[in-house]
Order: sequence, then structure tokens, then C-alpha cells
Amino acid sequence: MAQIKNILLSAGIHGNEKTGIFLIKKFQKNPLLIHRKSFTTRTLLINQKAIELNQRYYEIDLNRCFASSIIHSSKPESYEELLAQKIYRQVRESAIDFAIDVHTSTSNMGLTLLLSNNNPLNLQLAAYLASRNPHVKIVRTVNTEEQNRFRNIFPLGFTLEIGAIAPNVIDSVWFERAEALIIEILDYIELVNQHQQPEFSKTITLYSLFETVYFPTDDTGEITAMVHSQVHGNDYRALSTGEPIFTKFDGSSIPYQGSNTVYPIFINEAAYWENKIAMYFTMKEEIAIPILN
Amino acid sequence: MAQIKNILLSAGIHGNEKTGIFLIKKFQKNPLLIHRKSFTTRTLLINQKAIELNQRYYEIDLNRCFASSIIHSSKPESYEELLAQKIYRQVRESAIDFAIDVHTSTSNMGLTLLLSNNNPLNLQLAAYLASRNPHVKIVRTVNTEEQNRFRNIFPLGFTLEIGAIAPNVIDSVWFERAEALIIEILDYIELVNQHQQPEFSKTITLYSLFETVYFPTDDTGEITAMVHSQVHGNDYRALSTGEPIFTKFDGSSIPYQGSNTVYPIFINEAAYWENKIAMYFTMKEEIAIPILN
Repeated sequence: MAQIKNILLSAGIHGNEKTGIFLIKKFQKNPLLIHRKSFTTRTLLINQKAIELNQRYYEIDLNRCFASSIIHSSKPESYEELLAQKIYRQVRESAIDFAIDVHTSTSNMGLTLLLSNNNPLNLQLAAYLASRNPHVKIVRTVNTEEQNRFRNIFPLGFTLEIGAIAPNVIDSVWFERAEALIIEILDYIELVNQHQQPEFSKTITLYSLFETVYFPTDDTGEITAMVHSQVHGNDYRALSTGEPIFTKFDGSSIPYQGSNTVYPIFINEAAYWENKIAMYFTMKEEIAIPILN
Repeated sequence: MAQIKNILLSAGIHGNEKTGIFLIKKFQKNPLLIHRKSFTTRTLLINQKAIELNQRYYEIDLNRCFASSIIHSSKPESYEELLAQKIYRQVRESAIDFAIDVHTSTSNMGLTLLLSNNNPLNLQLAAYLASRNPHVKIVRTVNTEEQNRFRNIFPLGFTLEIGAIAPNVIDSVWFERAEALIIEILDYIELVNQHQQPEFSKTITLYSLFETVYFPTDDTGEITAMVHSQVHGNDYRALSTGEPIFTKFDGSSIPYQGSNTVYPIFINEAAYWENKIAMYFTMKEEIAIPILN
């Protein structure tokens, strides 16, 4: 297997996700924590303007700006589109092989790895981490619309979503868990580079994101129901046909009417409020890990 | 005891505190829920512009604009100062006796009643609620700087702080708890008006807010430590001399060095991030409830 030579640890694509931002700042101030012999580790705080403003973004969501059409556009149309182009060039020059982009979510996401792709090393690493840590959940996105994310410009790695954490909060409990996870990943890659790859489980539970679920609205666009109290906070829990999914403001419940059991995630993610997204549905699958050493 | 004739239920002083905003909207659409024979119940969504923007405020924090000097100023200097004056006039015309202003907090505040004052009826109601519901905590503010809050313009009532809830999230679990609490309060006042005041406990645990605690910072103003993992999320838990309160980003702990045990609240409230406030200290006191029927 090819060596991983350059790793990027980043945060601050969203300026209000402070737990990840301060974790990267900690690594910047304590470089020995992320130094390993067989590869170089770089750090990056991405949207400095949004970080200073304590806002998710300045003009538009930067983590929707990494589509090929935008990063190669001759006419970037916003601060964030221009920034995406700059960051893309910077990353290319550094020849990053593997990237962890740290985010936080107001949803109960634990330590979710949103995989960039199904490369065997990505899946092996995910299987290794998930078998050792019950907070770790593995998600892959199958929608082509998700190809505009920062993670998609790298050969290997993932978005790390930590939560539940409110924006503009440093949650030290999750901070410490995320720090330990990243250290574990660097140690793992060091061993892989030295041809001493640790054992990983032969299968992995994968949540495949396949549907965006919107809040019910009335004719004026006003939300008419909230996520049901049995669903709120229960990311990754099975939701079966007929179970309540929303509560209308008259007190009545709206049942989930799909025919397949689904596993909602990003339930009540505050940043999705402006788009009236209540949650995403995933399918839960057990897949065999490819072994290609 | 004088009759309570006009009650106000409000939310949306902060436009991103959606759980309270949608609870008030529910009451507006279902007026029978809050209708009682012996008094009139009005509802109000206060900062419509901030609500539409999904932001805490448009120009400045409206809940710092109810100082006498601002509401009677001939030169209001911002959208929010002007709005405070308009809301103040409106409330005066309605002759509100008792007001509940609903807020949410990213801190683990449960159902916190921030009392407007120590009027016996306020304390009796608080004692009644606290004895029936373990989520209810009673806070009084002793700082004169707090006299600029909306609650201070009413003879009776309180700010209801619900949490932990992230901004721009409707948390249905807390929504339902807060709704039940408000219904219980209206029922209680109905009985008081009918001279059938329910029994209340003879004493009450009161948390008196006395100190603002800031994050440690370096020369540039950058935060150098986060709230310790033993403190984060543990609002209302005793913090004694020598126990860790912050964790520096080099991993070392900063102990609490005060000589008295304190009870921190509003720990990691996201809205206080811009002012680098980490938490507030309260003293815990057991006080006797005045009986003045």
C-alpha cells in the first residue's frame, strides 16, 4: 500500500464551530502532539473571517463551495467561493494525501466520520476506530449533491462531525474525545506506513445517507411541526413505519410513513434551520472490509 | 392579595431561541390553552426582525435595553433601543401584572426561573413549582446591572430559561416540559385569584447570582482555556475550593481558587462567547417563603 506522506488537520470551515477550531489551535501550539516520523502533519483554520465573526459563514456556506465548477471557475461570486479557490490551491501545493476536517453539530452525532470515499484504507481505518470506540459512527454520502464538500478534494480522509455541541461553545468533554481520536488515527497511519497495520474488524456498520427530510410547512412556508420527542436527540436510532416522526403544534403526531426502517441523523442541526431541513435519513448496512495489502 | 388581571407570555427577545418562540406561536394558534376566567392572557413575539434573521439580535441585545435610561430616552440609538421603547409602551397600555418571558440557553439550565423580584407571590409560586418539578431552579439576580432586562418592567413574573438547547433548534422534549410548566402556572394563578391558593413549601432553594466569570485570555485577548470537563454541563452543581474549573490548551487544569463553594450557572452559554463570559457564579441559599395572605 502506498505511503501517506502529508496529512491535513483542519477546522473552521464554519466559523462558529469552536470546539474543533480550538482543538486545531491546540495542535498548532503543541506541534509535538501531531508530529510523527513517517509523515508530515499540517493544520489549517479555514474561514478566518467567519471565525472572527463567530458565524457559520460570511456570505455563503463555504462547505458547499468545493464543487469542481466553483473551484475552477474564472468568476468566483462571493468571499467564500474565492476562499475555496485559494484553499484548494494551497492544499494541492501541499500534496495532501489524507485529511480530517473537524466540524461540530447540534445533533447527537457522537464522533461521526463522513467518509470522503470508499477507498479500502479509509474503510479499514473506520472499522478499526469504530470497533474500539462506541462514539464512532461511519457515514457515507451517496448523493452527488454532496460532492461540493471540502473532504471531496482529498484522496483519503473524512469530515469529523462531533456532537451534540452548540455553535460558539467549546465542549471540553467532546474536545478531549476528539483529540484522543485524532491522536489514535495518526498513530494508526504511522503503523500503516511502517507496514505494521493494526488488526481491524472484518465488517463495518455503515450508515448511507440517502434522503433529506424537511419540516412540514403551511402555505406561507411556516413550519407546522417539530421533530417528535422520541426522535429528537436519537440520531442513529431505528425509525420504523408508523412511529411518530413529527409533532404538530396542535399536539397531534405525524407518523413516519416510509416502508423501510431508517436511521435519522443530523436531527435538528441548527445550521439546517434556514433550509427547513429537519434531519437526514440513512440506511444501515453491514459491509465487508476490503483487504488489499 | 390583589388579583392578577393581565398576564403576558412572551418569547423572541432573542430571535434564534426558537423553542420558546414556537411555544408562544402554539399558544397564539390555540388560545383556549391559555384562556382562564379570572384573567386575560396576552402573547407577544418580541423581536420580529431578529426572528426572521434567525439571529439573537439585529443591532444590539434587546434584553439589555430595558434600563429606565433607555426606555425613557429621547434619542434611542439602535433598532433594538427603539423596539424596547415601543414594547414598553405596549406593555404599559395592557396593564400587565405578571409576565413570563421565555428564553433558551445552551447551558444545562433545566427550567430556570430568573425572578423579576422577591415579591411574596413570586416566591410562593416559585416554591410551589420547584417542589413539584425537579427541573425547576430558582435564580435571583442581585446585580444592579441586571436591571436592564425585560422582566424588570413588570410587577410580577420571571424570565424562563430552558436548556440545554442550541439556538435555532426546537427541542420537543423541553418544549413539552415548558408548555406543561406554563399551563401549571396559569392554573395556579387562577386558583390564587379565586382565593384557593394551593399549598406551597415553606422554604425554597434560591440561587443568587453574584459574579461573572470570564475565560482566561492571553495578551491578545485570545481565550487560553476551556471550561473543565467536570464543570461543563454541570450547572447548579457545587464547585469547591481547589476543584478544577478550566482546562488550559496545554492540558493543565486551573483550580477554582475562591474560598466559598459556588454553584455555576450559564456555563458555556454560546451567546456570552462574544463577551468571553464562561459562566456565572451563584450562592445557594435556603430561604423561608413570606406568607402574606
